[in-house]
Amino acid sequence: MLKPFRVGLIGCGFMGRTHSNAYRRVNNFFDVQYEPVLQAICDNDQARAKSFADRWGYLSVETDWHKLVERPDIDAIDICVPNNLHHDIAIAAANAGKIVLCEKPLAMNAAEGEEMVAAVERAGVANFVSYNYRRVPAITLAKRLVDEGRLGRIFHYRANFLQDWTISADLPQGGTALWRIDAASAGSGVTGDLLAHCIDTALWLNGPISSVTAMTETFIKERRHQVSGKVEKVTIDDACAFLARFANGSLAIFESTRYARGHKALYTLEMNGADASFAWDLHDLHRLSYCDHRDDSLVRGWRSIHVTDSDMPYMDKWWVPGLQIGYEHTFVHQVADFLDGLAKNEPASPTFREALETQKVCDAVIASAKSGQWVEITSQ
Amino acid sequence: MLKPFRVGLIGCGFMGRTHSNAYRRVNNFFDVQYEPVLQAICDNDQARAKSFADRWGYLSVETDWHKLVERPDIDAIDICVPNNLHHDIAIAAANAGKIVLCEKPLAMNAAEGEEMVAAVERAGVANFVSYNYRRVPAITLAKRLVDEGRLGRIFHYRANFLQDWTISADLPQGGTALWRIDAASAGSGVTGDLLAHCIDTALWLNGPISSVTAMTETFIKERRHQVSGKVEKVTIDDACAFLARFANGSLAIFESTRYARGHKALYTLEMNGADASFAWDLHDLHRLSYCDHRDDSLVRGWRSIHVTDSDMPYMDKWWVPGLQIGYEHTFVHQVADFLDGLAKNEPASPTFREALETQKVCDAVIASAKSGQWVEITSQ
Amino acid sequence: MLKPFRVGLIGCGFMGRTHSNAYRRVNNFFDVQYEPVLQAICDNDQARAKSFADRWGYLSVETDWHKLVERPDIDAIDICVPNNLHHDIAIAAANAGKIVLCEKPLAMNAAEGEEMVAAVERAGVANFVSYNYRRVPAITLAKRLVDEGRLGRIFHYRANFLQDWTISADLPQGGTALWRIDAASAGSGVTGDLLAHCIDTALWLNGPISSVTAMTETFIKERRHQVSGKVEKVTIDDACAFLARFANGSLAIFESTRYARGHKALYTLEMNGADASFAWDLHDLHRLSYCDHRDDSLVRGWRSIHVTDSDMPYMDKWWVPGLQIGYEHTFVHQVADFLDGLAKNEPASPTFREALETQKVCDAVIASAKSGQWVEITSQ
Amino acid sequence: MLKPFRVGLIGCGFMGRTHSNAYRRVNNFFDVQYEPVLQAICDNDQARAKSFADRWGYLSVETDWHKLVERPDIDAIDICVPNNLHHDIAIAAANAGKIVLCEKPLAMNAAEGEEMVAAVERAGVANFVSYNYRRVPAITLAKRLVDEGRLGRIFHYRANFLQDWTISADLPQGGTALWRIDAASAGSGVTGDLLAHCIDTALWLNGPISSVTAMTETFIKERRHQVSGKVEKVTIDDACAFLARFANGSLAIFESTRYARGHKALYTLEMNGADASFAWDLHDLHRLSYCDHRDDSLVRGWRSIHVTDSDMPYMDKWWVPGLQIGYEHTFVHQVADFLDGLAKNEPASPTFREALETQKVCDAVIASAKSGQWVEITSQ
Repeated sequence: MLKPFRVGLIGCGFMGRTHSNAYRRVNNFFDVQYEPVLQAICDNDQARAKSFADRWGYLSVETDWHKLVERPDIDAIDICVPNNLHHDIAIAAANAGKIVLCEKPLAMNAAEGEEMVAAVERAGVANFVSYNYRRVPAITLAKRLVDEGRLGRIFHYRANFLQDWTISADLPQGGTALWRIDAASAGSGVTGDLLAHCIDTALWLNGPISSVTAMTETFIKERRHQVSGKVEKVTIDDACAFLARFANGSLAIFESTRYARGHKALYTLEMNGADASFAWDLHDLHRLSYCDHRDDSLVRGWRSIHVTDSDMPYMDKWWVPGLQIGYEHTFVHQVADFLDGLAKNEPASPTFREALETQKVCDAVIASAKSGQWVEITSQ
Repeated sequence: MLKPFRVGLIGCGFMGRTHSNAYRRVNNFFDVQYEPVLQAICDNDQARAKSFADRWGYLSVETDWHKLVERPDIDAIDICVPNNLHHDIAIAAANAGKIVLCEKPLAMNAAEGEEMVAAVERAGVANFVSYNYRRVPAITLAKRLVDEGRLGRIFHYRANFLQDWTISADLPQGGTALWRIDAASAGSGVTGDLLAHCIDTALWLNGPISSVTAMTETFIKERRHQVSGKVEKVTIDDACAFLARFANGSLAIFESTRYARGHKALYTLEMNGADASFAWDLHDLHRLSYCDHRDDSLVRGWRSIHVTDSDMPYMDKWWVPGLQIGYEHTFVHQVADFLDGLAKNEPASPTFREALETQKVCDAVIASAKSGQWVEITSQ
Repeated sequence: MLKPFRVGLIGCGFMGRTHSNAYRRVNNFFDVQYEPVLQAICDNDQARAKSFADRWGYLSVETDWHKLVERPDIDAIDICVPNNLHHDIAIAAANAGKIVLCEKPLAMNAAEGEEMVAAVERAGVANFVSYNYRRVPAITLAKRLVDEGRLGRIFHYRANFLQDWTISADLPQGGTALWRIDAASAGSGVTGDLLAHCIDTALWLNGPISSVTAMTETFIKERRHQVSGKVEKVTIDDACAFLARFANGSLAIFESTRYARGHKALYTLEMNGADASFAWDLHDLHRLSYCDHRDDSLVRGWRSIHVTDSDMPYMDKWWVPGLQIGYEHTFVHQVADFLDGLAKNEPASPTFREALETQKVCDAVIASAKSGQWVEITSQ
Repeated sequence: MLKPFRVGLIGCGFMGRTHSNAYRRVNNFFDVQYEPVLQAICDNDQARAKSFADRWGYLSVETDWHKLVERPDIDAIDICVPNNLHHDIAIAAANAGKIVLCEKPLAMNAAEGEEMVAAVERAGVANFVSYNYRRVPAITLAKRLVDEGRLGRIFHYRANFLQDWTISADLPQGGTALWRIDAASAGSGVTGDLLAHCIDTALWLNGPISSVTAMTETFIKERRHQVSGKVEKVTIDDACAFLARFANGSLAIFESTRYARGHKALYTLEMNGADASFAWDLHDLHRLSYCDHRDDSLVRGWRSIHVTDSDMPYMDKWWVPGLQIGYEHTFVHQVADFLDGLAKNEPASPTFREALETQKVCDAVIASAKSGQWVEITSQ
């Protein structure tokens, strides 16, 4: 008999959908001790919330998150709203004794993040940040290869997250749909939105980053704002690139942009070790490229691993070898892992505290881009 | 308010899962007028059926399909059992006035198929065969390109379906798990299992096949049978290849095997027209390769289309550009189309009658492999 | 001190260029005991021959091959003319005691080929047919992998040779430039031109073919003939596909066409064994794809071997790892191997006798396409 | 009648081979007004020079370059020796009135380069630096696409040059074979060796670089020196990465290393414009990837252009569509272009003056890596 896990989810946007889908599907595929109950959906637009509830089967609707976090019939608050609201909601939810799940990035900046970590730890509630790419089976496999030492001493890390959806100067900024192009709601541009993913995976795979030097650029300087209706200065970074040194002595380059024509959501990642290397990209997320120098030299080459066999991470839960899964499954995996961790009292990663490290690197990147200097990062 | 579509599904195997998942998900993503209700699951193993019902939310369990097809609280029978049972169940369901959905291939052979077509048409019930690959967005896109005439006169068609899971001589045959390696339950080997998919897509994209010449082979001659426990002759075709001529004058080669080491489920397909060509494979199902000779010659080449934008077939229902879907979504698409067709009284393809054409080609292939002669196919 | 190898080459077309280049380059890269001397070029068009001699450094010019083969200052005759002339020139050259090198295919048909084999063997002269793809380093590597038994029992072989250069109905046939589209000069269409390559490689890698069933098609039925200036019936096969059984029990499909839009010269080839498989294609000839089932399953996948390291066949002679060679180098390799064989009195492959086997398969393919029957092939 | 172009080439290493091959082949394929005459080879090791002369057909041998540059029977000096000798030889040759061709990089640093530019310009002699990758047909094509404005406003440039040949700590440094791992002979490590290529192409395609921030690393701190026989400090940069801003407002990342396991000589390059993007890599140098946003969205994707058709740069000189050329051909192209420029009195690019710009960027990169600061670059 499964225990109920009563969720109050805030936000009906893209992430609201991915999280709702994950809750709806987890028990069909994973044997966890909890069954998510979609207790309430919250959005300040009531009609939007109602329509969302109908589609996904939420049992009730709220329009004020302050009220939601106080409801006694809810076990967990799932935060899927713009970044500027994460801090207040998470702290209120923790203070109300709720489990707190939060979409990435954790916060607008590390200072906010510190307070959020303090709140959930003080309240002693389970907490989790949705850096979903850790649970792409190919990346989980890569983590395993790294942890087993198959790569040997690491020399290089590189990651890009390239998009092209904001190239048109006619695209407005701000508001419900385009809050990611407004620093007031997003904190930063590609740094918090895209590089945060790259940094989270990098810290997970390769350990702490000790220093960075960065540059940012805003290619389109002014756009019409959706709320004011006026042409206003664009406040976010359209593109950001940085050099980094890891604590383990390896070097890295990171880059992100929304101006890379032809790339829709191309998150790429590569690690080079003395013995082996791997590479991955989001446009073919079901594959991992791997090259092992210890192979017989006659047949040595980059292997394209089709990560669909049942001995691959998570893949015994899905279909049969050769049949790929997609983007949304990463959210199912993290719900499964989170619920499993809850049952075992072993927190799933990344917790708020772990996700705070990514926030620190983001802050250092933004600071370096302003100062033109290398910035050191102190991790705990 | 959605109308209920009360399903009685027979079979708790791999296909039972893909169909159940499709029913569970369709309303979260597609705006159709029906809501599937998982009324009953049927399996001759009661414990298996009960466990399946728990996982997927079926409201009741049956162990005798004869009883299921007579239940008045069921609108549609979905057949997900081995091929040797399709004929009897489908006819009984049609006679009971039920909508009939059937996993591919339609039947053990065309003679059975003819009777099934007659039954559903006599009963006037909606009917559908689950050739799911038509609804891979990349293939649906290819169909659109062909229908728009972008390829010009068609010269060549080629399709392969390559697997490697039966290479070990230690693999047994027959029984619940391995009925596909037993002609008594499957009718044929790769011909009905894999080539049937290739043929269905081919007929859909390129019109009728007029003649074939084929060869088949059984590489492992004897295997232990799961039911008898004895080593018995292997009755299926392990591999099958055939040459074909289409009614439109184009030439084709088809091949399928379960002995192609390194290929898990590599369904590949290519069409060459006078003006343009496309190619696709199942291991990267979210991509379509396309080459258009009318392009400026300086930048002419095979295009790798990442079929994830919202103007691509079905893709406006899912996520955002760059984020891929997987295998299971093809079943969601066909349920959505079927329910949409039901609402509009426009049958979704392929109906039993349409799927019968594939059966005729399969029969001709098997006959040619026996006779060593070219075999003509008469389509309606 | 290198011994001279005095060549008289007949034909100033595409193959005349590839062979001349090979003679000019071999000593810069390979340590062989002979140094080719470009003694004479022969073409019935004197101006063309003169221009060719100037470009490539031939020491003299002939316009009548009968005269060339009698010249005492020539050691070897290299035949680079249309197929209908191979037979007479080769036999005359052999009778004159010359070494004979011949572009593929050996002859118009096996009957001619038999006579040519008899002539060179009777005369006791070294002889060689230029099936150059054997000496693409990636294919030579594949041969080594097969010979070492790495693939295990072979189940499948497949090869395609796809082009698109004759799709336009405005392209004429015949004459100097387009003799390949005229059965009078070429013997057949794609069968002798392209499939002959596929068959030669197949026999070399996988042993004798025992039977075939084939189909051919001529898509454009009439074209203006370059010589007569009139619209005449097209006599060649535009496309040809066949099924085959090898003596070792494996199955094969072969296909060739000049109507595969988007493919310029896409020779592809794949072998599937119980333990491992490989695949190759001419458009990236410096790579070999290889998949070994014995790999640790976590990192198993198709390897893309960049065949440029110095332990790869022929590659120690060229540049450094990572730097690819191209098409023309295959001809340099075969000249090097031929001269090496000459020095050691160990004939390089394929000799006329070996190339005759390919001719027999071609004949069987053409016969089967006419009769619609399987045709057996008797190899020696 | 071709005019002689009498070459005195200094250096019998890898670059001596690529240049000699280019001189030997150019007239077989290109219609230029000059015919290279291999007048003299110079190496301080006489036996090595003699052997090289025998293989490549040099007419004489010198062991002292001072003597060579004074020989009246020589028109051009081609410098293929370690970087620390470029300056003195080039200036002496210019002062002797010789045409000067020099392997890249131009010099040990920009100061040396300035003096070399002054010398050749004062002497009024033709001069050229061998940045051969400009003449990979795919890159020449990319240049044409950029110049035609097909990409639109440029936002991003990225280039990597990744190798893995120095990972072993057992590899010694210095001496004839390993002078590239010794700052005394090479000036720098990957910066001058590999990044210089990336920078040259970048300046050519995307205009001047205005500022950079860089990091370098030496992973293996000590190696046995080939000359002293002792373990000595490694003086070169094993890896270097830098961020850059171009004068046109675009952003760039560059990276190079000899510690990227699995990459042999992977020079990659990509440009993103508002309308279109392209990408290229050296491991498949005969292909260009191109994505044009103006394509019909249904068939929009990255195109893999197989740069072998006769309308592609340089390709009408070689074989037929589909048949690839390789690395060495880039040197033939540059000799052809250089000789053509000589005939027309239009200097081929890059001249010493043009190549000096790359040197300045290299200097800025090295300076930034030392200071940790952004460094501005003043181009002329």
